[in-house]
Amino acid sequence: MADIYPIDGGVTAPAGFRAAGLHCGIKASGKPDLSLVVSDAPAQAAGVFTLNLAKAAPLLVCEKHLAATGGRARAIITNSGCANACTGPQGLADAHEMATLTAAAVGCDVSQVLVLSTGVIGVNLKMDKLRTGIPQAAAALSESGGAAAARGIMTTDPFPKEYAVEVRTDVGSFRVGGMAKGSGMIEPRMATMLGYLTTDATVDPVMLSRALSDACRFTFNAITVDGEPSTNDCVLALANGASGVEITENLYADLFEAFRTVAHELALGVVRGGEGATKLIAIKTTGAATDADAWMAARAIANSPLVKTAVHGGDPNWGRLIAAAGRSGAAFVLDGARVQIGSLILFENGRPFDELAPQAADYLTGKEIAIEVNLGTGGSHTATVWTCDLSAEYVKINAEYRT
Amino acid sequence: MADIYPIDGGVTAPAGFRAAGLHCGIKASGKPDLSLVVSDAPAQAAGVFTLNLAKAAPLLVCEKHLAATGGRARAIITNSGCANACTGPQGLADAHEMATLTAAAVGCDVSQVLVLSTGVIGVNLKMDKLRTGIPQAAAALSESGGAAAARGIMTTDPFPKEYAVEVRTDVGSFRVGGMAKGSGMIEPRMATMLGYLTTDATVDPVMLSRALSDACRFTFNAITVDGEPSTNDCVLALANGASGVEITENLYADLFEAFRTVAHELALGVVRGGEGATKLIAIKTTGAATDADAWMAARAIANSPLVKTAVHGGDPNWGRLIAAAGRSGAAFVLDGARVQIGSLILFENGRPFDELAPQAADYLTGKEIAIEVNLGTGGSHTATVWTCDLSAEYVKINAEYRT
Repeated sequence: MADIYPIDGGVTAPAGFRAAGLHCGIKASGKPDLSLVVSDAPAQAAGVFTLNLAKAAPLLVCEKHLAATGGRARAIITNSGCANACTGPQGLADAHEMATLTAAAVGCDVSQVLVLSTGVIGVNLKMDKLRTGIPQAAAALSESGGAAAARGIMTTDPFPKEYAVEVRTDVGSFRVGGMAKGSGMIEPRMATMLGYLTTDATVDPVMLSRALSDACRFTFNAITVDGEPSTNDCVLALANGASGVEITENLYADLFEAFRTVAHELALGVVRGGEGATKLIAIKTTGAATDADAWMAARAIANSPLVKTAVHGGDPNWGRLIAAAGRSGAAFVLDGARVQIGSLILFENGRPFDELAPQAADYLTGKEIAIEVNLGTGGSHTATVWTCDLSAEYVKINAEYRT
Repeated sequence: MADIYPIDGGVTAPAGFRAAGLHCGIKASGKPDLSLVVSDAPAQAAGVFTLNLAKAAPLLVCEKHLAATGGRARAIITNSGCANACTGPQGLADAHEMATLTAAAVGCDVSQVLVLSTGVIGVNLKMDKLRTGIPQAAAALSESGGAAAARGIMTTDPFPKEYAVEVRTDVGSFRVGGMAKGSGMIEPRMATMLGYLTTDATVDPVMLSRALSDACRFTFNAITVDGEPSTNDCVLALANGASGVEITENLYADLFEAFRTVAHELALGVVRGGEGATKLIAIKTTGAATDADAWMAARAIANSPLVKTAVHGGDPNWGRLIAAAGRSGAAFVLDGARVQIGSLILFENGRPFDELAPQAADYLTGKEIAIEVNLGTGGSHTATVWTCDLSAEYVKINAEYRT
């Protein structure tokens, strides 16, 4: 295995990528609402898209363009503040026009443009703002534009998410960078909200798809804020070859590990910045009879409002963890089950250890919480899902989102 | 069909039932924590129990006793303030002792006693309090004790839930009464929290089980507060024959309808009194390809924190309804879908009608909200699930439950 080092930056950390982010007028707040990422040379491209059957118009355009080019792209144009979802034929026409405007501005074929939108569902795009904004974004493209691009995709996110690594192999070094957005309507059934990975390695589109899917499984697909897979969830990857390193089967493990590393940091950033979140919680299930059971139980616990409120309140309420595991649909044997909060075992062999509750409550005052639930079946399967606590602030944000 | 009239009272409204409720010392607050319901003659008995695999000790005792007697019971003893769940062999011994104490106090065989507990998981019962409390409850039994019994089973419930009807048939009249508790850890996968139905009709135990299951399907099993089926969910039915009316196949529909009517009112009471709830929301799905799809989509919408916070905030955010239906796992066709809030159609034929949003927001200021989502498949299946809004108060209650 090659060595993987964290480096500064995000999507423009790899060579041959430029990006920009700016406010074009979609958001009334005046905050950035447009983001453009461009590969100087045509890049190999891959995407994973929401399983929500109410799929947004821009994702339909992405899928069409990736099919038409066989997995090649030059640019990703993203607006925030409007999801362009549930917008009918007009929405599809608008998503196509975003691609056309971007193609004209960066000088490529329209099929080489991928289009993403995020924000309120059911509202049409302000195309007049995009008609002036997209050329402005193209004019602002720079090799240090990754940070601005990461801001241009934010909605309720409290902070931008970007990360990058350098991979040093025997045949040379390449880089992987990425950015993500997402704070609500987050759940791990598929790619979560919007994620972007760039690399200056050369990767065959089929292998790029495989690396992206494999990396998402343990990162973007293993997080949840509120159990709500959105209409717009998508993670895209671009590989432009500017480093001169070509990913062969020999180097696949390195590419996967670099993708996983960047995607892991971005995905955890999404959870840390989850709507109303004050704590990052890792839910690990062990002792599961099957891999599917391990994931099913971990997701049920991670999405349990009673577990999330208990952690929020600093209450080591292991009974809620047992109850969520017991109702998850996974095989579960109460007498064999074990609950561990941090390093403290609070329930084992059918009995509580409530004398440890004060220590556990103290542990829960931290910002990063590790919880392990053994399902007691004697199986050896495990899974880890990351979630956040549920606070009154989550309710406030979502009760007042459009008002 | 016979006529069904609402009457005053709850579990003691039918003839031949007595009940009591009091504080015996389990709750530190001094609020009622013990409830006893007794049929003067041995009653036919049936129960439906949680599907949560972490099933509480008292439910194991109920199932054992119902099997031993072939569906006969004299008494139901319930404590609140402690769920006696995840309490190991000691918990099972305690549940058995509750039955033994009750049998001695009311003068029946121990197998004729059904035992229920509700409250905090993982804490052992204060048996010394029950040893003095159960004889006191037996001494306090009265034909007007239903209201006290309904208070004795409450935990975080903001108000007691009881209801009763009289059924006037050609062969005489009989009554059905009931009470329920439940406010959090509520979801419609099975019987929800604790429900009790009594009738003075004579009903064969097999038919009683059938009537109870059929009635629960559209009532206790069609509600949710937070998507959390508990370790202690249970609904019990007792039929003592004191009215002289025997339920034959001819009268089954009347018994079912009376059970459904009482269970409906009690179940809606659970939702109205859901933790932090300010609104009762009926989610109806139509246009579903299968019955299972109709329920799956209705439950996904009813449990969606984004839908529940939007209603809480008075935001007619139909996009969240579409997104929840689209991710539910049910067949869904966006172009055929329709969203109706009250009488207002906000989305149809792929297009929003946002000009109606102010009217819809006005409608959402009410206490009882009806929402209909057509899944657009052209199918004819429908389902209705009742839920409540998600408020900051829910978070507060559950973050501070044990502190």
